[in-house]
Amino acid sequence: MAAAAAATAAPLDAAGVRLVTSLAPLELARLKWQPTLPKALQGNFAFVKGSASSSYADQAKIKSLFPHTFGQPSVQLVPLCDGANAPAGATPVSASETPVRLGIVLSGGPASGGHNVLTGVHDYLVNRVHKDSVLYGFLDGPSGLIDSKYIECTAELLAKFRNQGGFHCLGSGRTKIESAEHFAKTAAVCKRLQLDGLVIVGGDDSNTNAALIAEYFRATGHRTRCVGVPKTIDGDLRNEQVEMSFGFDSACKTFSEKVAALCADAVSARKTYHVCRLMGRTASHITLEVALQTHPNVALIGEEVQARGQGLSAVAKSIADIIATRALQNKHYGCIILPEGLVDFLPDVSALLGELNELIAAHTTLPANVTAHLSPASAALFSSLPEAIAQQLLGDRDPHGNVQVAKIESERLVAYLVEQELLRRKRLGTYRGNISIVTHFLGYEGRCGLPSNFDANYCYALGQTAAALLAAGCTGMLAAVQGLTLPPAQWSCSGLPLTHLMNMERRSGHDKPVIRKALVRLEDAPFQIFEHSREAWKYQDCYRNPGSIQYDGPFADEITMTLQLERGPEQDKQRKETNQAQQKAKEGKDIKSNL
Amino acid sequence: MAAAAAATAAPLDAAGVRLVTSLAPLELARLKWQPTLPKALQGNFAFVKGSASSSYADQAKIKSLFPHTFGQPSVQLVPLCDGANAPAGATPVSASETPVRLGIVLSGGPASGGHNVLTGVHDYLVNRVHKDSVLYGFLDGPSGLIDSKYIECTAELLAKFRNQGGFHCLGSGRTKIESAEHFAKTAAVCKRLQLDGLVIVGGDDSNTNAALIAEYFRATGHRTRCVGVPKTIDGDLRNEQVEMSFGFDSACKTFSEKVAALCADAVSARKTYHVCRLMGRTASHITLEVALQTHPNVALIGEEVQARGQGLSAVAKSIADIIATRALQNKHYGCIILPEGLVDFLPDVSALLGELNELIAAHTTLPANVTAHLSPASAALFSSLPEAIAQQLLGDRDPHGNVQVAKIESERLVAYLVEQELLRRKRLGTYRGNISIVTHFLGYEGRCGLPSNFDANYCYALGQTAAALLAAGCTGMLAAVQGLTLPPAQWSCSGLPLTHLMNMERRSGHDKPVIRKALVRLEDAPFQIFEHSREAWKYQDCYRNPGSIQYDGPFADEITMTLQLERGPEQDKQRKETNQAQQKAKEGKDIKSNL
Repeated sequence: MAAAAAATAAPLDAAGVRLVTSLAPLELARLKWQPTLPKALQGNFAFVKGSASSSYADQAKIKSLFPHTFGQPSVQLVPLCDGANAPAGATPVSASETPVRLGIVLSGGPASGGHNVLTGVHDYLVNRVHKDSVLYGFLDGPSGLIDSKYIECTAELLAKFRNQGGFHCLGSGRTKIESAEHFAKTAAVCKRLQLDGLVIVGGDDSNTNAALIAEYFRATGHRTRCVGVPKTIDGDLRNEQVEMSFGFDSACKTFSEKVAALCADAVSARKTYHVCRLMGRTASHITLEVALQTHPNVALIGEEVQARGQGLSAVAKSIADIIATRALQNKHYGCIILPEGLVDFLPDVSALLGELNELIAAHTTLPANVTAHLSPASAALFSSLPEAIAQQLLGDRDPHGNVQVAKIESERLVAYLVEQELLRRKRLGTYRGNISIVTHFLGYEGRCGLPSNFDANYCYALGQTAAALLAAGCTGMLAAVQGLTLPPAQWSCSGLPLTHLMNMERRSGHDKPVIRKALVRLEDAPFQIFEHSREAWKYQDCYRNPGSIQYDGPFADEITMTLQLERGPEQDKQRKETNQAQQKAKEGKDIKSNL
Repeated sequence: MAAAAAATAAPLDAAGVRLVTSLAPLELARLKWQPTLPKALQGNFAFVKGSASSSYADQAKIKSLFPHTFGQPSVQLVPLCDGANAPAGATPVSASETPVRLGIVLSGGPASGGHNVLTGVHDYLVNRVHKDSVLYGFLDGPSGLIDSKYIECTAELLAKFRNQGGFHCLGSGRTKIESAEHFAKTAAVCKRLQLDGLVIVGGDDSNTNAALIAEYFRATGHRTRCVGVPKTIDGDLRNEQVEMSFGFDSACKTFSEKVAALCADAVSARKTYHVCRLMGRTASHITLEVALQTHPNVALIGEEVQARGQGLSAVAKSIADIIATRALQNKHYGCIILPEGLVDFLPDVSALLGELNELIAAHTTLPANVTAHLSPASAALFSSLPEAIAQQLLGDRDPHGNVQVAKIESERLVAYLVEQELLRRKRLGTYRGNISIVTHFLGYEGRCGLPSNFDANYCYALGQTAAALLAAGCTGMLAAVQGLTLPPAQWSCSGLPLTHLMNMERRSGHDKPVIRKALVRLEDAPFQIFEHSREAWKYQDCYRNPGSIQYDGPFADEITMTLQLERGPEQDKQRKETNQAQQKAKEGKDIKSNL
């Protein structure tokens, strides 16, 4: 495949130019870097089943839609010490006498670490199951399944992608497997390749797809099984058991370094506000994590704005208030961050978008005099928007005809309205500072960089877990790795029934079973700490710089604040209890050694 | 000073939130990190004078404008081995019996490493000259000199800024010391503070200013001396002796990581072209360095475009050609980088800008029907521009009424014209690929990040050298550190007469003495290697990812390709010759030991 080959076999033009056509030193070193496996995957392990599962909500409906896969117990990979027997009820796992054949798909936007899912699956198959096992990689996302486009992921091919960023070994895509024809074609290619299992690497939609494929395969008697792997830099595929989706760590670290530099730039030049939009369409996890890492003067969290029912002009006014207060302190600079999906959380913009979408649905194209067709509130809002944003609302549409919210440059929208508000105050004589706002968007550069050690380890473990689940006959599961605030060797691995994560939601006019998205919860530690700290950040310039991603030295294994705050205390407690129990067992005091 | 204090003394809101208000671990570690000094500054050294200097051009004119400082010899800091005598003609440097009092100004846009110039000057003064020496930092750039705003840079204050990014210990600004009143005020504040010397940290303009100040002080009998330090991320303050300006290394590394991620994103999603503008107004060094590091499909070098006399539409057509050829290879993606100052290098845009500026000069504001007042070629070009860019040309102006080229979003301009060209070809049926272009600007985030080890070491050495020059009585000099491809301990330090770097140039209608800017030279190794390699990069996707800035491990001391290619071979040769000579000397074979 061209992309795969080209990425590594950089041609030499002539003697002497090796310098500029070979890989970079760090890239080469990362190719050879060895991730640390969780203990269960380092040696012998057994599968231990949990109790029967349910669904996040709408149990009866989900059960009726997934009759063959609903209610499965979760399974945990439990390490076995050498020579020890498996615990009661556990199934020890051993090498297979026959090779296992798997397929894998990378779905949706890229996220750092995807290639390590591939190497994790491959290495488990070849090293733990049977040396002649085979892994096929479908090209360009789910369309590769439908169109039967694939390559074999050999050890030789994967050697070029270990610990590297991007999804370019296979490519990715956003096609959904939805129609009966799609499912039939997917089944056909899996049958032709004699696949024992299929790994779907993706976000909530892709993993919903994985659940549907698993159900379809069981219902139609295909032997191919299907498991998912939780990917998304947005961090919104998450719940009690799924501590984090992969890619979030690397993306937030990349963005945090940039935002910290913008904060330092602001306070150095002392004359400009940087307004920076960060990726994160449906949830504001990235913005919250970057805020906790860098302490900007303002961070807008969509979920909070929504909970308060704040409209667009209220948001702009509140920012103008902060700028005005800082101006009185002779601070004519600052840094403001906001999530890509902010406009979706604003009730007034949300209402306007809804009305525009309805107008299009009714008229196919928008009528010439749009405002005449809008409610007074939406018409007023629309008229107040800058020309470029109004054009974005009227222009590009997604395949369903809807406004493409991700294309709205919300940082420019907010900057424009804040400027207008400050100009109004200048005219009234209530603001005397200068007005200089520079806008930024941080997104694409965080999706494909070299994965952090965390994401490299995490994805390798996720890939091995997914392969272990499929090799053991599981289907309709999400590969999960837990205990992520502990060192990687102490992580635990399991399979969670995908239906357990689902509920029914209204999508494009239909009730559909979907994996529930995790939004920022205002009652959880990350937001609470943010809320507690931000008054100081507003006025006192507590800028913090976590620096660039480190691969060596004492800071190479830093994890996100989100994980630390959400999981740290609990996992610290668990670790202490485990240590105490082990200590007591060793000392033979209270309990007998049961290993 | 508020900014300085706030940046470090992050307040604790309440017990338990220390986590989010304290400095980041890497930040803390960098505060304690110790730069490596060049050998001359590690122990005893002597000053060795070179021969009399001249100027880059216009010798008679420069000499007449700088009668008191023109023609000075350069000086080199030569290390003395313990117990050895200074070489003939050298002045050994020893501690002073009286404290030395210096002032320092950070001028222009921030660049990573600026704080280490401060600590370098301070540490030299206190540790090498006299413990009671004093360093004053003028606030917010040269205006701090004029307005007599300053703080004392104590060890305690500087402890919060060691190896940190930004210029916020003092702030910066772009005020020029130009009028007689400015010079008089500058002299007055230096006199009142009893300064022995003044350090100006800045780019070519600021160092031209340093030369003027030095001349003024000598001419008017003020005892304060003045030296400059070469700063600019753009890398255009450079010549035979000044191997690199500081900040270029950190900025290029920051940008390269981002561009590499955009390349990986392009080849992963396989459906989008990323068009990325990089800082660098007058010269394209940053774009060239980032191209050598990352191998994008296209990198536009302004100096080459100018040399070829390519117009805007020719540039757009050549990019469209590459996109069309790649589409035939089923590659509907790629990465294109270009310098901020591209439009200045395009003869047609340059002509249009000139005509617009003349129109404004003649009419104060632009007439309503602009195109009627332009030449046919400029009118046609103006009419072909997208609305937003036309507005940028007509709107914001700098204080001199000129179009602010830096505000023109050249990446959007190029993207728009390439789109139009591809659409045209689609209509003609000669292009069948898709058209999806996303634009980016990388700039501010590269100016204020934590400095790389290179910039941290380099700036610390520059600061110490500047202090050594001033303490020894030098004036009108630029602090220079050479041998930058060697390990820092092997770097050599010197002072170069600022007038040696100057020529006369026409600026705002007047002939002025200025330090000559270094543009990309098409005959030098960096461009030559780029030119030699880029055909492969265009079509074969040789993307290369140097990764993020590392502070630990084997890649923490990587230097730029620009330095490696420009200076590496020569300095390698020097090092070998030195090693051989030392070896022979030790063996007593050919030459006598003269140390």
